[in-house]
Amino acid sequence: MGPAQRAAADLAAIREKKPLIHSITNLVVMNETANATLCIDALPIMSHAVEEVEEMVGIASALVLNIGTLTPAWIDAMELAGKRANELGIPVILDPVGAGATKLRTDSSKRLLENVKISIVRGNAGEVATLAGIAAEVRGVESIGAEAGTDEIAARFASTYGCTVAITGPVDIVSDCKQIARISNGDAMLAKVVGTGCMSNVIVASFASVDSDPFSAAVGALSTFGLAGEMAAKASGDKPGSFHVELYNALYAISPADVASGANIKMSDI
Amino acid sequence: MGPAQRAAADLAAIREKKPLIHSITNLVVMNETANATLCIDALPIMSHAVEEVEEMVGIASALVLNIGTLTPAWIDAMELAGKRANELGIPVILDPVGAGATKLRTDSSKRLLENVKISIVRGNAGEVATLAGIAAEVRGVESIGAEAGTDEIAARFASTYGCTVAITGPVDIVSDCKQIARISNGDAMLAKVVGTGCMSNVIVASFASVDSDPFSAAVGALSTFGLAGEMAAKASGDKPGSFHVELYNALYAISPADVASGANIKMSDI
Amino acid sequence: MGPAQRAAADLAAIREKKPLIHSITNLVVMNETANATLCIDALPIMSHAVEEVEEMVGIASALVLNIGTLTPAWIDAMELAGKRANELGIPVILDPVGAGATKLRTDSSKRLLENVKISIVRGNAGEVATLAGIAAEVRGVESIGAEAGTDEIAARFASTYGCTVAITGPVDIVSDCKQIARISNGDAMLAKVVGTGCMSNVIVASFASVDSDPFSAAVGALSTFGLAGEMAAKASGDKPGSFHVELYNALYAISPADVASGANIKMSDI
Repeated sequence: MGPAQRAAADLAAIREKKPLIHSITNLVVMNETANATLCIDALPIMSHAVEEVEEMVGIASALVLNIGTLTPAWIDAMELAGKRANELGIPVILDPVGAGATKLRTDSSKRLLENVKISIVRGNAGEVATLAGIAAEVRGVESIGAEAGTDEIAARFASTYGCTVAITGPVDIVSDCKQIARISNGDAMLAKVVGTGCMSNVIVASFASVDSDPFSAAVGALSTFGLAGEMAAKASGDKPGSFHVELYNALYAISPADVASGANIKMSDI
Repeated sequence: MGPAQRAAADLAAIREKKPLIHSITNLVVMNETANATLCIDALPIMSHAVEEVEEMVGIASALVLNIGTLTPAWIDAMELAGKRANELGIPVILDPVGAGATKLRTDSSKRLLENVKISIVRGNAGEVATLAGIAAEVRGVESIGAEAGTDEIAARFASTYGCTVAITGPVDIVSDCKQIARISNGDAMLAKVVGTGCMSNVIVASFASVDSDPFSAAVGALSTFGLAGEMAAKASGDKPGSFHVELYNALYAISPADVASGANIKMSDI
Repeated sequence: MGPAQRAAADLAAIREKKPLIHSITNLVVMNETANATLCIDALPIMSHAVEEVEEMVGIASALVLNIGTLTPAWIDAMELAGKRANELGIPVILDPVGAGATKLRTDSSKRLLENVKISIVRGNAGEVATLAGIAAEVRGVESIGAEAGTDEIAARFASTYGCTVAITGPVDIVSDCKQIARISNGDAMLAKVVGTGCMSNVIVASFASVDSDPFSAAVGALSTFGLAGEMAAKASGDKPGSFHVELYNALYAISPADVASGANIKMSDI
């Protein structure tokens, strides 16, 4: 089964099983990521109280940790939930939003990577480079540049932390220690709406909940999300407000057949 | 005056009086519930600091408590605001989001029900069943099933807590200890957008601010909200992003005459 | 260069320089203000942890403080960030949301005005009047809509605090101690969507990041934002959900030429 077929099969499984996705995420995108989750027929739950995160993750099929508006108390909750997810064998996705922009963000990302077994890290090139020890510039949550190519950043990160990494950008790169995928789906309008990266996290988590291979899950999720972006751009043109609306419509409408025929994935060994 | 006529009269009163609705609600739906409030010409205020909730509720016409992303500190603020609302005779609406999914949610809902006189509880079947002592499954914030029919759950809850209860679903059920209303307005798309239940809370609160009978207020609000959902579905088709936009348009456009002619309410005594 | 030409030049500078705008704002409008920021090609960052706000503001070009869902801990973070912005010479915009409604809001606004050098305060007439010490009379004046009242409020505020003040309403008033501008752009639909005032704050901040004169920055920003509101109203009609979507489209599409020809600004000396 090629990667596009596997992505299609994963999407069909999500739409059938309706996995519960527990997100501990930032205050800016909570509604948007919950709606993205619901659009692909997964069920969103947001919960960040240390008093309940372990119990909540116990009924979930995947956990998303996103540090976009972090405080130390929220990182405590993320670590608790992550450790419990590890005990239960539930995949954990980390988005190190703004790692490299402030010491708190870099340190908190490292703390989570050290204390929780992360299945997939999804971030931009600057964030991932910073955590891999490669000099990079991160302005707020925007990647400005790094002293290495995206392939090298991904490979270095994957070998340092022993997990799958997905770097999103004009071309998305997914790597574990053995292979690299280049995903050429997507549209420039995805960068004109706040939180599309955060939305992609819950799609990645949904795929990881039905596909035991994190690499395949990340590849399938990002090609599916990118395709939805292409569909939304066709429906809305150069208008970010309309594109945002159409992105939900596309995530809801996109079918396994769309993914099987439209996924643009190139695989290579490292 | 029949229930549809009373709903229409209540909506007219809201549009004229523009009541201030104070919400202490979850982080996922704050913007959406504030916009829903504004669309029916009520005025939204969000405030959760223990230092000010009592003063803020003093200028409000109704209070909404929603535990969707609860922490113990937020429950403290809800209890303070609720007690002050009780002193002032302002109706309090409680949405026990996720009661049954975690101990914290079940316990916090019970704590609020014990310490604050709630006018109307609005939730799904699983949440309400859990609080009424009927076994039920709640997955995150989704009701999966309960060991009793919705009518029985509603009747048991109303008699246990002595307040009006509204269980929303394909058919909405409202009950106090004396009568039951079945509201058949609404559209399946309401389940495809995050926070429509939370939006319905502020509509219920707005109706309760102009109608001294909690049962009539809940019935009127849910038929009005359901009708707006029908109007939105007609305008948007099977597209959740577009439906979300059209739902605000419909809440803004819906008139007392629309409600008088379109409300689909069946009443019966218990 | 007249005020419309200056507004156009400022907008062109924002679209070219992509300034980073750090907001510590309320939970209701975070996504909306971030998207408004991005639509005019500035970059949004939200960060409120006391552990990082000083470092984050160090890479920003302007800082927005908005007390809409304040707690004392958030005000601490705002004060820290504001003081650091002052050291670095970065403009600080304050929105005293709800000043006058509760003691906490009035006191917190005054605390920020006393401890941080604010470049521009943006609020409604009642909030600004309260802080200028003329609350009761002003509420009465506001209810009968006297324009002379608003001028006096603005002048009193500007002379009390020595900063630029922008009072938004049907006609926006901007004043420092020397001059007053009346901006007649905008549309009544801006009052039918939650958070448009908050969105205008980040537009003001973006202008202040490229224009060293706070008065000119506020005038340019509010005429640009008002014009975008006019464009959105034309595209959407009397529908708040659609207007909200079109407002982002308009903020993204609006050009320096649109501003140069459409800005409706009247200037006068005090």
